Amino acid sequence: MGLGTVGGGVALALTDHANSIQRKTGFSVNLRHVLVRDSEKTRDPAPPEGVLTTNPEDILADPHVQIVVETMGGDHPAGEYLQRALDAGKHVVTANKEVMSRRGPDLMALAQKKQVNLLFEASAGGGIPIVGCLMSQLLANDIRSIRSIINGTTNYILTQMAWHQASFADALAEAQTRGYAEADPTNDIEGIDAAYKLSVLGSLAFHRRIPHHAIHTEGISQLGPEDFRYASELGYAIKSLAIAVVQSNGLVQARVHPALVPENHLLAKVDGVYNAVEVTGDLCGQIILHGQGAGREATTSAVMGDILSIVRTMGSANVPPPLPALDVNGDDTDSAVCPIDELSSAYYIRLTCADQAGVLAQVAQILGDGNISIATVIQKDTDPGSGTAQLVITTYPAREADVQFALAAVARLGVVVGVNNLIRIEE
Amino acid sequence: MGLGTVGGGVALALTDHANSIQRKTGFSVNLRHVLVRDSEKTRDPAPPEGVLTTNPEDILADPHVQIVVETMGGDHPAGEYLQRALDAGKHVVTANKEVMSRRGPDLMALAQKKQVNLLFEASAGGGIPIVGCLMSQLLANDIRSIRSIINGTTNYILTQMAWHQASFADALAEAQTRGYAEADPTNDIEGIDAAYKLSVLGSLAFHRRIPHHAIHTEGISQLGPEDFRYASELGYAIKSLAIAVVQSNGLVQARVHPALVPENHLLAKVDGVYNAVEVTGDLCGQIILHGQGAGREATTSAVMGDILSIVRTMGSANVPPPLPALDVNGDDTDSAVCPIDELSSAYYIRLTCADQAGVLAQVAQILGDGNISIATVIQKDTDPGSGTAQLVITTYPAREADVQFALAAVARLGVVVGVNNLIRIEE
Repeated sequence: MGLGTVGGGVALALTDHANSIQRKTGFSVNLRHVLVRDSEKTRDPAPPEGVLTTNPEDILADPHVQIVVETMGGDHPAGEYLQRALDAGKHVVTANKEVMSRRGPDLMALAQKKQVNLLFEASAGGGIPIVGCLMSQLLANDIRSIRSIINGTTNYILTQMAWHQASFADALAEAQTRGYAEADPTNDIEGIDAAYKLSVLGSLAFHRRIPHHAIHTEGISQLGPEDFRYASELGYAIKSLAIAVVQSNGLVQARVHPALVPENHLLAKVDGVYNAVEVTGDLCGQIILHGQGAGREATTSAVMGDILSIVRTMGSANVPPPLPALDVNGDDTDSAVCPIDELSSAYYIRLTCADQAGVLAQVAQILGDGNISIATVIQKDTDPGSGTAQLVITTYPAREADVQFALAAVARLGVVVGVNNLIRIEE
Repeated sequence: MGLGTVGGGVALALTDHANSIQRKTGFSVNLRHVLVRDSEKTRDPAPPEGVLTTNPEDILADPHVQIVVETMGGDHPAGEYLQRALDAGKHVVTANKEVMSRRGPDLMALAQKKQVNLLFEASAGGGIPIVGCLMSQLLANDIRSIRSIINGTTNYILTQMAWHQASFADALAEAQTRGYAEADPTNDIEGIDAAYKLSVLGSLAFHRRIPHHAIHTEGISQLGPEDFRYASELGYAIKSLAIAVVQSNGLVQARVHPALVPENHLLAKVDGVYNAVEVTGDLCGQIILHGQGAGREATTSAVMGDILSIVRTMGSANVPPPLPALDVNGDDTDSAVCPIDELSSAYYIRLTCADQAGVLAQVAQILGDGNISIATVIQKDTDPGSGTAQLVITTYPAREADVQFALAAVARLGVVVGVNNLIRIEE
């Protein structure tokens, strides 16, 4: 309904691709209304005559509208509009990760009841066709894990920091200059955007609710260029990953945070604004989908794919197949998601310490007492001015709660100036 | 119908996943018959009681059979069986690249007429969900190119040659020992298997027939370990690519051959038996799907996904949507595919020459006369015994026919012992 960046792309694609839509589906699509904030604004390219409106009722109350496309974003009022559209028996295509994360199961149940389609390929992964793959081609699999780079802004910033040894602030400013980051970048750099998307993908993959607020979320602003340097020495890249894993106890670990990824892993090679999603299933094994996770054209590709899927079935008395993600009976709480404290992971720890003998022994003592085994130690970048050095420790897999407890004790050591960073290592 | 490797995997998955199929689709699937060559053979795990038969009529004439699954391979008799199954109003799921390449459009038209599904996700890319993506999620795009690694045997051999400087013969023997290559490896190493798959993918992507016999196909047996060494010095990996590109004149270039791929491109990092497909569309941009291209579980994932797609719609009076690949009216010939002579590409050329002054000048003269610009020259590996050296030349983009013509002249030079290799460079 919106004619923002993506909405305009969809409107344009409906016009530009009119012939091929007819050829590919057997039907033509007629663009009736486009909801905008300001219908007087000059738009390039100009929308077709008479389609712009500032009144959502023009769309929701028009009995000739068969498909409502929503690319406005945000839960309110988009969520209410979509509910009303479904209630009125209209098919819905949405790119809205927040709505699908917050209200997905309810909207799906409503679509089911009304026997209409609710498709949302563009809500996670942009142009990467991961949503449809989870709902259809990979549906037979018991999905075991999703590991993904699903925020292009963050990945652009981390790529700049890795390639040019840039500070976080400089890399963010560069991303803003290029239009890859918003003026207020909070949603991207704090992992909130990725958590919404992981919530959508995890719910589809594991057939239960993965509420976004149950996802442990850490941003990237605490990373420094030295972390990239040390990680590289150890054979790792640093990426912000959105991860959901079914544990052996049946609970799901769901988390968004920076992670060390082995340099030879394909996820380590996802650069710039690109996204990638790795899915592991019992039959398909490990599948990786890589592509543009955002941007007008890529999102338009996903939205248009959904529109064509609906249009293709319009000739027959088709009833949409049940949405596989509806299997959430009794799982309406976040009890399926386990707390981060119970995670078992290897860790990268960076400390600023006094540059004197015996420091490592004190730190190692505390980690050992906490059942945390040290894998490697790098001590370097001595600063004669402050009399400090950097101590970088990697551990073997340990329990998150134990590591957090031990690090609190390490921080209280007189020889430790500060705990700069704790980054999980994904092997 | 077959209970070969994959057929057995499907039969097993239908049993193992019975609960989750019911939960995900609302229906249970009942395995009625499995066609085998020898019903007395001991099988592990044992198939359900009473399902094995050696008579295809048990399946084709059974009115209770709603879905026929074919994983036997080969055009005959599988093609005839599938035609009869569709004719009898049964849904068909097939993993058969050869049948889909040779008879795809005819079978699709028949499925359309009979209002049944014909799904074939496993026919190309194994567990990688590329077929469904082209038919559905990416359908709105005008697809411009497919570049892919879709033969795991070949990629395994090339990876061994690159990593261990193995000869082709040794790497093939290793692949055969590990079960990655057949006793008669011709279909894989000569690119025939990849051409069938490219024919299937290209037809879906470009909505016209890309007959496998119109695809220019070269094998990998002429590659030597030195080619990998020189390519690496130049910053390239060597991969066997299956490529289909829509040219500016509207014709499709379709070819399977070894190619130099820049080392930092994701396709260069596809190792071992893995497959990857890169699709470029006008909206989605460049998307890469990476995963297991063959093997029992991966293929079972694809076949099962198709089965579940059909089962999900069984409750309603659903009519399958038209298959988008049906748009082949009037394109029943291979006129949409242009000959390799008209390709414009950069090239890697390896010659064995007399180790004497003036050789390069003579070769360069011929290339220059043919409008072929040289980009780099490496002259090395002098062999004092034979008095020869290796001359490796890369060119700027040139016309294939010009390059072939010039190389024939180069081969006739007295100072040239042999033209060892001509490999296209994919930037």
